[in-house]
Amino acid sequence: MAKSTINIALIGQKFMGKAHSNAWLKVAKFFDLPVEPIMHTVVGRNKEELKTFAARWGWQNHSTDWKKVISDPAIDLVDIGTPNNLHETIALAALKAGKAVACEKPLANTFQAAKNMVTAAKKSHKPTFVWFNYRRVPALALARQIINEGRLGKIYHVRAQYLQDWGGPETPLVWRFNKKLAGSGAHGDLNAHIVDIARFLTNQEITEVSGMAETFIKERPLPENPKKKGKSTVDDAVLFLARFTGGAIGSFEATRVATGNKNGNQIEINGEKGSLYFNFEQMNELMFYDASLPQHLQGWTNILATSPGSHPYFYAWWPDAHIIGYEHTFVNMAADICKMLGGKKPEVPMPDFEDALKTQQVLDAALLSAAKKTWIKVNSIK
Amino acid sequence: MAKSTINIALIGQKFMGKAHSNAWLKVAKFFDLPVEPIMHTVVGRNKEELKTFAARWGWQNHSTDWKKVISDPAIDLVDIGTPNNLHETIALAALKAGKAVACEKPLANTFQAAKNMVTAAKKSHKPTFVWFNYRRVPALALARQIINEGRLGKIYHVRAQYLQDWGGPETPLVWRFNKKLAGSGAHGDLNAHIVDIARFLTNQEITEVSGMAETFIKERPLPENPKKKGKSTVDDAVLFLARFTGGAIGSFEATRVATGNKNGNQIEINGEKGSLYFNFEQMNELMFYDASLPQHLQGWTNILATSPGSHPYFYAWWPDAHIIGYEHTFVNMAADICKMLGGKKPEVPMPDFEDALKTQQVLDAALLSAAKKTWIKVNSIK
Amino acid sequence: MAKSTINIALIGQKFMGKAHSNAWLKVAKFFDLPVEPIMHTVVGRNKEELKTFAARWGWQNHSTDWKKVISDPAIDLVDIGTPNNLHETIALAALKAGKAVACEKPLANTFQAAKNMVTAAKKSHKPTFVWFNYRRVPALALARQIINEGRLGKIYHVRAQYLQDWGGPETPLVWRFNKKLAGSGAHGDLNAHIVDIARFLTNQEITEVSGMAETFIKERPLPENPKKKGKSTVDDAVLFLARFTGGAIGSFEATRVATGNKNGNQIEINGEKGSLYFNFEQMNELMFYDASLPQHLQGWTNILATSPGSHPYFYAWWPDAHIIGYEHTFVNMAADICKMLGGKKPEVPMPDFEDALKTQQVLDAALLSAAKKTWIKVNSIK
Amino acid sequence: MAKSTINIALIGQKFMGKAHSNAWLKVAKFFDLPVEPIMHTVVGRNKEELKTFAARWGWQNHSTDWKKVISDPAIDLVDIGTPNNLHETIALAALKAGKAVACEKPLANTFQAAKNMVTAAKKSHKPTFVWFNYRRVPALALARQIINEGRLGKIYHVRAQYLQDWGGPETPLVWRFNKKLAGSGAHGDLNAHIVDIARFLTNQEITEVSGMAETFIKERPLPENPKKKGKSTVDDAVLFLARFTGGAIGSFEATRVATGNKNGNQIEINGEKGSLYFNFEQMNELMFYDASLPQHLQGWTNILATSPGSHPYFYAWWPDAHIIGYEHTFVNMAADICKMLGGKKPEVPMPDFEDALKTQQVLDAALLSAAKKTWIKVNSIK
Repeated sequence: MAKSTINIALIGQKFMGKAHSNAWLKVAKFFDLPVEPIMHTVVGRNKEELKTFAARWGWQNHSTDWKKVISDPAIDLVDIGTPNNLHETIALAALKAGKAVACEKPLANTFQAAKNMVTAAKKSHKPTFVWFNYRRVPALALARQIINEGRLGKIYHVRAQYLQDWGGPETPLVWRFNKKLAGSGAHGDLNAHIVDIARFLTNQEITEVSGMAETFIKERPLPENPKKKGKSTVDDAVLFLARFTGGAIGSFEATRVATGNKNGNQIEINGEKGSLYFNFEQMNELMFYDASLPQHLQGWTNILATSPGSHPYFYAWWPDAHIIGYEHTFVNMAADICKMLGGKKPEVPMPDFEDALKTQQVLDAALLSAAKKTWIKVNSIK
Repeated sequence: MAKSTINIALIGQKFMGKAHSNAWLKVAKFFDLPVEPIMHTVVGRNKEELKTFAARWGWQNHSTDWKKVISDPAIDLVDIGTPNNLHETIALAALKAGKAVACEKPLANTFQAAKNMVTAAKKSHKPTFVWFNYRRVPALALARQIINEGRLGKIYHVRAQYLQDWGGPETPLVWRFNKKLAGSGAHGDLNAHIVDIARFLTNQEITEVSGMAETFIKERPLPENPKKKGKSTVDDAVLFLARFTGGAIGSFEATRVATGNKNGNQIEINGEKGSLYFNFEQMNELMFYDASLPQHLQGWTNILATSPGSHPYFYAWWPDAHIIGYEHTFVNMAADICKMLGGKKPEVPMPDFEDALKTQQVLDAALLSAAKKTWIKVNSIK
Repeated sequence: MAKSTINIALIGQKFMGKAHSNAWLKVAKFFDLPVEPIMHTVVGRNKEELKTFAARWGWQNHSTDWKKVISDPAIDLVDIGTPNNLHETIALAALKAGKAVACEKPLANTFQAAKNMVTAAKKSHKPTFVWFNYRRVPALALARQIINEGRLGKIYHVRAQYLQDWGGPETPLVWRFNKKLAGSGAHGDLNAHIVDIARFLTNQEITEVSGMAETFIKERPLPENPKKKGKSTVDDAVLFLARFTGGAIGSFEATRVATGNKNGNQIEINGEKGSLYFNFEQMNELMFYDASLPQHLQGWTNILATSPGSHPYFYAWWPDAHIIGYEHTFVNMAADICKMLGGKKPEVPMPDFEDALKTQQVLDAALLSAAKKTWIKVNSIK
Repeated sequence: MAKSTINIALIGQKFMGKAHSNAWLKVAKFFDLPVEPIMHTVVGRNKEELKTFAARWGWQNHSTDWKKVISDPAIDLVDIGTPNNLHETIALAALKAGKAVACEKPLANTFQAAKNMVTAAKKSHKPTFVWFNYRRVPALALARQIINEGRLGKIYHVRAQYLQDWGGPETPLVWRFNKKLAGSGAHGDLNAHIVDIARFLTNQEITEVSGMAETFIKERPLPENPKKKGKSTVDDAVLFLARFTGGAIGSFEATRVATGNKNGNQIEINGEKGSLYFNFEQMNELMFYDASLPQHLQGWTNILATSPGSHPYFYAWWPDAHIIGYEHTFVNMAADICKMLGGKKPEVPMPDFEDALKTQQVLDAALLSAAKKTWIKVNSIK
């Protein structure tokens, strides 16, 4: 890509629309980039809301017709922030139109859809990106660095949980509880993240899983009429055990009813020589146990991963211990997208469609094993 | 039992021998008891060591012949602190001789052996006790109280792990890695505790499990000649998923290679109205999340469970926040044994052989499911 | 102010220049405001740097002549982000020119200079604001709310520390170690913040102080030639004891050599009925002890102050537990400045020059007491 | 002392009587000692209580006549656990009778009384011991070791607080609020401990102090008739700033009204190369910051100071992470007393009367400075 600006079309104006808009707004203010992202066009369904949204965030154009926008030769990058069930259709069209594509996670609602997206990406020879934003939490990028430095040695255990609690019995039957729209419940929403993080940190793939799914709250109040109830068709929680290519074993859990855990995206990894622990609720901190220290000094070290001189991404932000938040993970990812589109390397590996397909395969295997009540080999999902 | 003293025979003089001796030494100093425990006789195999041990701890007699001691009419309570593979034989003989029996956990190495012990106990009409000492950590007794007060509501999740790290590749092939002596590895040693704790706290039984077992370190240095290696025949780690009678789902994990976790006996329980978390490494503390508080005040509360006026067992110990340790859990249990032998109620429910059999059944089901790679119903273990 | 936009002139383009630019950039994206801030002109001394800075952040104009900018009728608000020794001169000129003024903290290097600024502000009848940004950390705004709700009762203790560690013996002799430019060392930089926070939270004024100052590292490497050393003329640490109008007693400490504390801006307040603790290194968390709860449930509650529905400022940001960072405190303050300029009330009280003068008075009294080695009444500073 | 047993006379049967009895009971069970302590005689005022106490704890004899007991030639060591105002009289008599003396802290209620005790000790050539038990918390003994290993470098800051909360307005006017009996309030009770700990850890003496004292609750309910109130004649809180011989500066605080802090005996020490933090409420843990580690790995390390192989005193107790409690600090001290009486060195330095006098001098200087509202040199107290 020879030109020095990247025109972006963002599809979606809800939660992810806000997070992505903020990322594109801030990225060139904090990072020195080889290409400049231009907030060219935002696409949404509700025209009134969209107009306000575009004005507020400084999008140069807005449109309710995503097909037209995608075929606009001015657009370089299509950024998909829609509900999951639309990812495939939009991505295929964008790739066909010769655009680079950044897609929200999970890649798709089914392994088949995800596979189609990978095929289209390969055919198009265009770069693709999947918004597994947590890879770009500085503390997690640091965790990967520590593992790559050999400080954990052989990995024995991966223990990953993404615990939330907003899904109690009072929570109405919004689209996230509708399988047709959401694909699954906590599983696709939350397990997708921690499977990606586990793969990112360990450099190992998951080979085999045994899972269970549970819908604790079978009926929920209707949004339009809370006195009536409708049926929830997705899981509230999915747990699974796993084996990894390198010999590690692991457990994964996603739930929306773990009271007291608001955004408890956490992972612990135990190796022969050391261990790591991270919880997003303290996202600036990484716990590291170094078993190579003198024995009387060993313990869990709380590393505040906020040093501009020594921690990933922080050179772009603030002085030491002037902490950052959730939104910065999107800015960091936007920076890496711009770097890659400008021919540079990202700070940590970037998941493309092909990489995200492997996460999808694990998710599908876990659900299948839950249904069959037996272990399932991940590569049997095809 | 009409008489006001209880003559105790302790079988075992190693780690548990020390823990039990300390408990019998201290219990009547701190607690007001209906019967007084007398440290009558200690039994061991190494005569020289035993003599020193008996003198040090104030045992009135010592013997290398457990059968003779058990048949001594002076003995009221036989306290078994031997390796697991001897539990059955000694317990059966003691019950036959009409003694009350306190037995270390796990009850036995196999479900069949455990069943024999239950049968013998029923036949003898003598009281039995199993040293699941963690039930008597004040913070865990408080956890049960909070659940019984209805403060968690319907329970959704149980998340229990017992993580240790002493079993790395340098650790020699001691008896604990020999299946014939130990029965299993981390599973019987550690999962036994957390299954008991989960049952104790939730008042629910486990109905169905799916597990996996792993021996990461297949060969270990021989104790007598570290340059040579021998084969480990037990698991280093066992994980399993579970379903409970009351609708909760859970995960359990025991391991000896979770670097940085020294005695990480931990459990989190999430209910509709609140949650609890405990880790033995901070054994005086209980974390409680109360979702019934005003929303702007909700959070995890760190309860230092050390108040003589309001926390279990602490009336017997020290002023508030003058914390207690591991050994006190045995003293608390010794106090409850004395109370029960004196016709009083224990402070929290006491596991007898029959109760411990249920824990054993879950452990056996978990191992079977790991071998068969499928879910196993707990009551199919017979 | 009748018009619906506010033209801002920012003086300063270093650390605070970046923090304020980011605040003005983001504020109208996240908050619904009665007036819209316009990034009109940025002023700096280095023309080349300034040009780049202005372009990067989207300032419409830039200039190296602050006097000219201030007299520009288009400007509504002068935002002063320069070193402390320039605050007075610029503020006086801006007020004289009829502008609203937002000034970085501390208000000035001397009480006399600060008094002049207050006098000028009163005379001008223009609104003034001082960037004590920590008042707008949601967790600290929540702390104030909890105190105002009466949940602490009578306050006994205030324990405030601002601990940093960047000032070790290797740190070169930059301007911050030069009394003529910086006024003082850790004292004006850090104690200024915690005195303001203590006053903000307790609604009490400090009446009397006894302090000590220390320069541990008397000579430092010269920035231009690290082999040579020059004399540091400021304190590395200042501690003082204090009495408050409402009967509370307190201690304050600011230091740059508290190894391991990167940005440890912390305060604990103990009242008859409850206590609060905050540390900026975990800025999204507030610890609250509620002594009115049932005794067996009492403990320190870690409130993650990130609920859009129930915690200050969070309605503007992200879903629950999607945490925010240092920069958001400036955005929150920019929002309140815009609200006030639009005739609305700020979310929590805003310090103007007069209010900041009281903080300055305490700081001066503390230094005087350190020099005289005796207690000093705060109102004796005139 | 040639003989291999030590006959102990304990004066006092309340809180400290219980703590000391437990220590003498357990010490020879866990430690290998050069001399064996014999629980020979316990002395108290209430004959009925005393009899029960003696029987419960296994004291061979009991008496209400301390003078007679002290003059008994069978007694080797007099252990004083009475209220502070009796320390001097009993210690002088015991030393005169040629006994070794172990005395509870603080050494006395006044510097003069303490000086008399030192003079008597010197004259008698008998060993003396003061029960500053916190020196023998393994985590604090480890802290001293880390400092002695040079891992902190030059010490800049000492920050010590002993925070309790049992002294609110409902607490009745017990003897601890009577200056004649108690000498002072929180000051002698709590500051005594943290001054000793600061001296113990830093190997520095305090040279100069500036303090403040406060009695928040001037009147309290009478124990015998809670509807009536009487006057409290002691401090509820005392704070002071300090300078140390080695150039460090420090702050100390003792209070009984810091709601939520039950036994918050805490200290932080910041040195050029590292820092330490300890809080008794987590007494098995020591926080250590090592600024010599690679920068990206630096953080506060939570050392669980419970390793039999590498942490002080733990070789005598339990396996790693099987934590100990408050009472163990007394057992550890009893072990060191026995070692010293048997001609061996204690594990960490033991405070004798002369050493404790220095702590007393600091306490007196702090109170004098509070009264005079100026700095006081510690060696001006004579």
